[in-house]
Amino acid sequence: MDSSRIWTAALIVIGDEILSGRTADKNVQQIGLWLNLQGIRLAEVRVVPDVTAVIVEAVQALSARNDYLFTTGGIGPTHDDITVDAIAEALGVPVVVHPDARAILERYYETRGGLTDARLRMARVPEGATLIENRMSGAPGIRHGRIHILAGVPHITAMMLEALSGTLEGGAPLLSRTVGAWVAESEVAELLQHTEKAHPGCQIGSYPFFRDGRVGANFVIRSVDADRLDACAGDLTAALEALGITVAADAI
Amino acid sequence: MDSSRIWTAALIVIGDEILSGRTADKNVQQIGLWLNLQGIRLAEVRVVPDVTAVIVEAVQALSARNDYLFTTGGIGPTHDDITVDAIAEALGVPVVVHPDARAILERYYETRGGLTDARLRMARVPEGATLIENRMSGAPGIRHGRIHILAGVPHITAMMLEALSGTLEGGAPLLSRTVGAWVAESEVAELLQHTEKAHPGCQIGSYPFFRDGRVGANFVIRSVDADRLDACAGDLTAALEALGITVAADAI
Repeated sequence: MDSSRIWTAALIVIGDEILSGRTADKNVQQIGLWLNLQGIRLAEVRVVPDVTAVIVEAVQALSARNDYLFTTGGIGPTHDDITVDAIAEALGVPVVVHPDARAILERYYETRGGLTDARLRMARVPEGATLIENRMSGAPGIRHGRIHILAGVPHITAMMLEALSGTLEGGAPLLSRTVGAWVAESEVAELLQHTEKAHPGCQIGSYPFFRDGRVGANFVIRSVDADRLDACAGDLTAALEALGITVAADAI
Repeated sequence: MDSSRIWTAALIVIGDEILSGRTADKNVQQIGLWLNLQGIRLAEVRVVPDVTAVIVEAVQALSARNDYLFTTGGIGPTHDDITVDAIAEALGVPVVVHPDARAILERYYETRGGLTDARLRMARVPEGATLIENRMSGAPGIRHGRIHILAGVPHITAMMLEALSGTLEGGAPLLSRTVGAWVAESEVAELLQHTEKAHPGCQIGSYPFFRDGRVGANFVIRSVDADRLDACAGDLTAALEALGITVAADAI
């Protein structure tokens, strides 16, 4: 495995309810954290409405420039669930009923009123797809090459991610250390920039906060190299302390 | 005002910390809700890293096809705050120090250690911009034509939205009614589709849940026309009750 290669993924969050503000998305954070554990970096997210043409454009643009593509939402049994059709259109393949998905749904609905036409919609996949297990609600997720079609309900999304864990090739995970400090970030902006420059392979992000009447900031250092990360965190801590600033070895 | 015209906005959430999963975004929901009150629909969101070229591409693509563009994040005093430079590049204008922003920061930092070079970065704007007030932390937001550059920290973003309230031309706000029902959405998928078709100008979204060992769904009806909305909600409720389903006049 070439651990210096950076593997990237994009995520398309599909749903009018996210854009209207009715529902707070939780999948960006959940998938961002999970991908990092797989050694894959979440490089871009789009939130799009339940409109086929917009989904098709996003699928084509993002899959062209990333190693993997994930979608969440729009795979249920109702008329507003158009994700599978849109992705099939983007791929230029027909939609077919997957026999294993049909069998899973038949078993699941055997004691729940039977497999209706609406429920059978959840067995439809872009031709050539395989299934992603979902122990929660019967209906599986869908994998088509580098594209992963997941549920939108966060705890069902989590089940599908669990089923995918360890199955995607990635690189070294991006590691991070956080140095918290009781200082206004604007007072140490130059120090941060110099420290980052002195430590190639490390990026420092600055996240200010205001709490209990005091200002502070968490400085998040990221690198794929643990030794470089430690060296950078050590130097940053020493430099802040030399200025008489109170520093914590973790986020404040 | 032409209330039949649909006004749209796009949002670009800028920041490595959102993509890595370290920070949960709250601005998509906050801005989606706020825009709707202004009669503007949030049509698309992108979450992008702190990379100039990616921000430039997103600004150009999204501002071309929406009435308004908003960005959050990346306007602080540190080296990873590159939003203003990226937007100026996208617009093809230079970055200049705005005299009013400079005066605001001078006053704010008068008792807080003075206006350093790093802090002066927060007075930089794309040439031609005006300021958006921020009562919280001194540093203002920035408006350049149809583009609004806001802070990333949610409560500061909220202050800037408050300052903008009522200043943007929009259309009729999208109204919604929610009908909650103790039923598996897959059992009423056809009914939902027929009800939507029978009520032009209304869209019905179906949001299933599993709670206390029971399945249910909230059906959200959206329209810019209050009368149509009420008629659709009434018909949907009657049709569900005719099937013996327990229905609530709001979200369950």
